[in-house]
Amino acid sequence: MTDHADWQRRAADKRAAQLELIPPAWRLPAPSTSLLPSDVRDVPHTSGILSDAELVITEETDAQVVLDKISRGEWTSTAVATAFCKRAAIAQQLTNCLTEPLFDRALARAAELDAHFATTGCLVGPLHGLPVSLKEQFDIEGVESTMGFVSRIGHVSQDSAALVKVLESLGAVIHCRTNIPQALLSDESINNVFGRVLNPLNTALTAGGSSGGEAALLAMRGSPLGVGTDLGGSIRKPASFCGLYSLRPTSRRLPYAGASNTFDGAEALESVVGPMATSLESLRVFMRAVISAKPWEYDPRVVEREWDDELARARGDEGKKCFAVMHSDGLVRPQPPLERGMRELAEKLSAAGHEVVEWEPLDHAGAQELVSRIFDADGGEDVRRWIGNSGEPLLPQVFASQYPAMSLYESWQVSRAALSCALRRCGQLAHLASAPQLNKRRDAYRQRFLSTYLSTRNRPDAQTNRPIDAIICPMCPHLAAPHLDSPRPAGLITYTTVWSLLDLPCYTFPVGTVDPKLDPKPPPGAYEPMSDIDRDNWEVYSPERFERAPIVLQLVSPRRFREDELLGLGEVIERALSRA
Amino acid sequence: MTDHADWQRRAADKRAAQLELIPPAWRLPAPSTSLLPSDVRDVPHTSGILSDAELVITEETDAQVVLDKISRGEWTSTAVATAFCKRAAIAQQLTNCLTEPLFDRALARAAELDAHFATTGCLVGPLHGLPVSLKEQFDIEGVESTMGFVSRIGHVSQDSAALVKVLESLGAVIHCRTNIPQALLSDESINNVFGRVLNPLNTALTAGGSSGGEAALLAMRGSPLGVGTDLGGSIRKPASFCGLYSLRPTSRRLPYAGASNTFDGAEALESVVGPMATSLESLRVFMRAVISAKPWEYDPRVVEREWDDELARARGDEGKKCFAVMHSDGLVRPQPPLERGMRELAEKLSAAGHEVVEWEPLDHAGAQELVSRIFDADGGEDVRRWIGNSGEPLLPQVFASQYPAMSLYESWQVSRAALSCALRRCGQLAHLASAPQLNKRRDAYRQRFLSTYLSTRNRPDAQTNRPIDAIICPMCPHLAAPHLDSPRPAGLITYTTVWSLLDLPCYTFPVGTVDPKLDPKPPPGAYEPMSDIDRDNWEVYSPERFERAPIVLQLVSPRRFREDELLGLGEVIERALSRA
Repeated sequence: MTDHADWQRRAADKRAAQLELIPPAWRLPAPSTSLLPSDVRDVPHTSGILSDAELVITEETDAQVVLDKISRGEWTSTAVATAFCKRAAIAQQLTNCLTEPLFDRALARAAELDAHFATTGCLVGPLHGLPVSLKEQFDIEGVESTMGFVSRIGHVSQDSAALVKVLESLGAVIHCRTNIPQALLSDESINNVFGRVLNPLNTALTAGGSSGGEAALLAMRGSPLGVGTDLGGSIRKPASFCGLYSLRPTSRRLPYAGASNTFDGAEALESVVGPMATSLESLRVFMRAVISAKPWEYDPRVVEREWDDELARARGDEGKKCFAVMHSDGLVRPQPPLERGMRELAEKLSAAGHEVVEWEPLDHAGAQELVSRIFDADGGEDVRRWIGNSGEPLLPQVFASQYPAMSLYESWQVSRAALSCALRRCGQLAHLASAPQLNKRRDAYRQRFLSTYLSTRNRPDAQTNRPIDAIICPMCPHLAAPHLDSPRPAGLITYTTVWSLLDLPCYTFPVGTVDPKLDPKPPPGAYEPMSDIDRDNWEVYSPERFERAPIVLQLVSPRRFREDELLGLGEVIERALSRA
Repeated sequence: MTDHADWQRRAADKRAAQLELIPPAWRLPAPSTSLLPSDVRDVPHTSGILSDAELVITEETDAQVVLDKISRGEWTSTAVATAFCKRAAIAQQLTNCLTEPLFDRALARAAELDAHFATTGCLVGPLHGLPVSLKEQFDIEGVESTMGFVSRIGHVSQDSAALVKVLESLGAVIHCRTNIPQALLSDESINNVFGRVLNPLNTALTAGGSSGGEAALLAMRGSPLGVGTDLGGSIRKPASFCGLYSLRPTSRRLPYAGASNTFDGAEALESVVGPMATSLESLRVFMRAVISAKPWEYDPRVVEREWDDELARARGDEGKKCFAVMHSDGLVRPQPPLERGMRELAEKLSAAGHEVVEWEPLDHAGAQELVSRIFDADGGEDVRRWIGNSGEPLLPQVFASQYPAMSLYESWQVSRAALSCALRRCGQLAHLASAPQLNKRRDAYRQRFLSTYLSTRNRPDAQTNRPIDAIICPMCPHLAAPHLDSPRPAGLITYTTVWSLLDLPCYTFPVGTVDPKLDPKPPPGAYEPMSDIDRDNWEVYSPERFERAPIVLQLVSPRRFREDELLGLGEVIERALSRA
């Protein structure tokens, strides 16, 4: 049995062991960290740890360029791995973005790849030599996997997650695992083992959660390609707060088998695996390669479906698209820079000849109530189980269940007990609207969305019988916010959770950063808020407080499993923004 | 509130109303029914109710031939609908196979279709004029839907199920709904409203369940194409007992939305929609047409995936296939005629040049224990809810829950309570092997199957690196059995339930019937049984007791969503049997 008072020492020992995995030559001088600017992205250039060549390698935002240079022999896998390991080590020291540095393992693998290439002239696979960082959840045989819980310190994985096997078969070099919130259940990536992740653009701001370590690492260019997971926004919001491209695929598109997870076994709403990167092309590299490996032969949940790379590149596609823009979820108005980003994008899409229509939010309050019930369905049992008897406290930032655990039957259906209780209380069934019956209410919401989507065929401007191509909206109503010391209010998360509830593919892309000239603080009284939470969100904004916060938007496909088409629409947007 | 003592009168009134929907000219003379042979399939020929032309129409086993004749104007939709309605009426009087006759509605729709064709020269869709029968679950707007429960008598559907909308958009003529077991939870199709379905091949035998009414109707040729649903064998076993072709697709391949269902909202194991018919070609007609209608635009659960009809026809496919044969599930040995059917098929496939290998069952006892826990997960709550306060009793044939209701968390995971209980009891965790954690155990079983399937690439005879193409096995260890008065023991159902647990596409096809010469009763002592249930199953067999019972086998695809490929393999088997 564990000594309850002991958890802090065990966590400190783990962090000391973690630091030992960073070679002395890659360490920043201790005193300087307290004198750092709030934007730490330039430190790799000034630290002297990376050579000029290594800086060039790590500045490359397109994973395909890295792969091409390796395949042409311009860069070795070892040089590339060394550069990214060094920069990841610096990122860790500045933002606390890692859980497990895997630098030795990565360099050994890179050497093997180089030897293979030198001997055979052949690449191991389409990701030959590309460093890839993984969120803490992805178990690797023989590597410690704590999941950020003190109870799991010392737990070494007996097998690798399916995604790890797939990536390694493709030639990828896994060089680190990245930090997460306790139980994966917070917008702030903080846990009792590894502490808090900082946003490298402005360390006073959150990097988001739960894939927050991954986002901070990528924004530091400590990795050319990362993998996160997303239950209700855990890929998209960190990507949003750190100015990244990311993809939340349909559930069962990419392999999750063998990864550690809280809520493991829950299915009312499924967590999904997806890539995060600094360019659209890098997302395509990941999807094309992983699906080419037939992930359905590694994880029986994965639906067999090929990748259409021509569709994903929108090559030769000069057709007019129809984008539906959702400016607000009807609950909380996005802060001024996000509104500007939406407006400017809509103008540019129109100017490029595309149709831009309005999208009305579909009962986001009701959807969020259902999502909250799904998150709370176990009454907190799973988090208690993970914490175990280690003594570590539940952190105040973690979403805490507000409901008692429900029966399996309640998750399907209104139980007879609930039915008679509702009848007793007021003689009618109105109360049942909030009875759990998670799966049935979720499916009803999906059916409603489907009908609404298909009805866009009948919009006045539709030149053909085609419904809209995609929906554009913010990721949340606020920018990367100051660090959190309590759970994010549920009212602020529907911009991501509704699409999770609908299980639709979502793509995120940056359009700019806060600009004090273009995004001044609105004068008091200029906006009549819809609620207290709406007022607080609007009034908290100032260009100083959210200095350098990225403006990242979300593109949602109304069709499941259409990740290739969605990235092709992303390409159409890049062109409209004159970036492609 | 309902008078409890009243349920029998309400059920009798419903049956009287049902009879009223059969026109007097289509009724059999009352006294003759008691003098009927046990094989009632010839009655339509001798009753005088159908004309010679109507007999020809209803004898056609290939739905495509019916469609072709309508499209060429050789038959009208009205003539076809009239013929099948008459024959369905006769089938109902002999086997009790219907719940709702929809003859007036069908004839009105057929007249509309004929008028449309006469005016425009065009067909409404690929199923123009084809009568289709549906299991009771498929709600139709404005039509009573009792689900066989007294509590639901008088319940009129406000909307049609997605499949009904799809079929009607394709031009199908829905001419009746078919009988089911109480709560859909029995191998014997019997309920307190409509009574028991008889097997038309031998009325002393069961037609199976839960799609038993559908199977009896099809075997009577009262429908050219039927639709059932299958949770653990509910399409396949009735098809098996009545000598039919059928398909249990992967879940989420065909639209289930808007259909009534027990266990509605449950997802650990999903019920699926599938076609039943008297030919392989009719199954293809259904799948091709329904998927051409884009069912994912009707039901958001349906995975978007096109139908490959060339693959489904195995046209030009003369390649060598590899069939893995599973002779026994290792728990209960199939009765002699089923063993003969398996043996003869394997010989014919080998003679046709195909590779035939053995398939070892994968822990069917463990899989069945898990399936039983899934069926029992609500502790019987759902059935109690459906029965309500009508007063109707739970029938002895219905699977009754043996476990208390579990929490949602237990369905995901081993709870802390279960964990400490197991530790208290014996200081170790062995007991947890049978803890619920339904979803995780199911996924582990699927992972194990996937590895085993892929490992067949390494079999000695494999000429390429291809794994086996499909698995052949019986549907259950016994033939259509005498009528049941208790639930079928769980040990007898693993031949269907394991494939449900794996969510793999299954196709059933007849290979013959019991032949007293070829299938004599084995002498006592000739077989050393593995268990009591195995001994009982073996000893109960005699050619007299199972007279005319069909021998139907099951072909299982190891790959999800490969229904087209599976039917193509079905075509390969038809050729090996010299039937195509």
